[in-house]
Amino acid sequence: MKNHKNAAMLARATAVALGAASAYVLAQGAAQPTPSERAIEYRQAVFKVVAGNFGPLSQNAQGKIELPAPAARKYAERLAAVADFTRDAFPEISREGKTRAKPEIWTDRAEFDKLVADLNTQSRALAAVTARADAKPEEFKAAVGAVGNACKSCHDKFREK
Amino acid sequence: MKNHKNAAMLARATAVALGAASAYVLAQGAAQPTPSERAIEYRQAVFKVVAGNFGPLSQNAQGKIELPAPAARKYAERLAAVADFTRDAFPEISREGKTRAKPEIWTDRAEFDKLVADLNTQSRALAAVTARADAKPEEFKAAVGAVGNACKSCHDKFREK
Repeated sequence: MKNHKNAAMLARATAVALGAASAYVLAQGAAQPTPSERAIEYRQAVFKVVAGNFGPLSQNAQGKIELPAPAARKYAERLAAVADFTRDAFPEISREGKTRAKPEIWTDRAEFDKLVADLNTQSRALAAVTARADAKPEEFKAAVGAVGNACKSCHDKFREK
Repeated sequence: MKNHKNAAMLARATAVALGAASAYVLAQGAAQPTPSERAIEYRQAVFKVVAGNFGPLSQNAQGKIELPAPAARKYAERLAAVADFTRDAFPEISREGKTRAKPEIWTDRAEFDKLVADLNTQSRALAAVTARADAKPEEFKAAVGAVGNACKSCHDKFREK
């Protein structure tokens, strides 16, 4: 009886875990996303969160927006945290589908992994700069630029235009 | 001259930061997303990453999938990390638009913030369970259930059906 209740509770938890988009699709009676589609959607969400946190830092570095130091630090720490998610956001199952990820990601994995590791390194370095009260604006700009270059290096090689 | 080069580099970095979806839209000559749309898309991405990490934990707790202990720990730590992003994923600007977020989020903010804090507390508790080598399956299931309930409590009150 208790197990039954636990199972029902967990089934409900999983229904929640399906997320807004999937629940909507299910409510419409449409097909559930395939594991492949789900993996691609997850990856794209990860990169949207990466971009959402890097964006304000980049705009601040360009003088387009003001960003108090605690906000910059928060964005940079979140960027570093979620950048770490990218390294396993490209499972084999996500190779085919509605994605701009090039097949070379899976055929030249060592090079791809190196570029992903660089994104992680540069993101952590940026977070470290924003955590230092004595960091100079030039250091911040250089660190932001290094993250941008890490993004670009990988996109140039492994993402469809 | 140097400043000019830096500015160009940073502008490129921002273009990267716009993310795949936005860049695609721009390439099509369509309108750029409004700040409101962007905030809503970011929020939905955050919750997709939440769900993407909670999903395997919930399925494992239900006995639907196997999950080695290090994988469970990784998912739980990522869930806890990104759950922290949800607390400021509901800026005033994201109130109107293509969203199921109810207006009560902004009119009953104290209650909403309490439920978001509970998600964070339960996610960290789950991560702590997965980090313990001596954790019993029942403890894991209870911790997963508590996260699921935290999701549900907030959805029931603050999300459109």
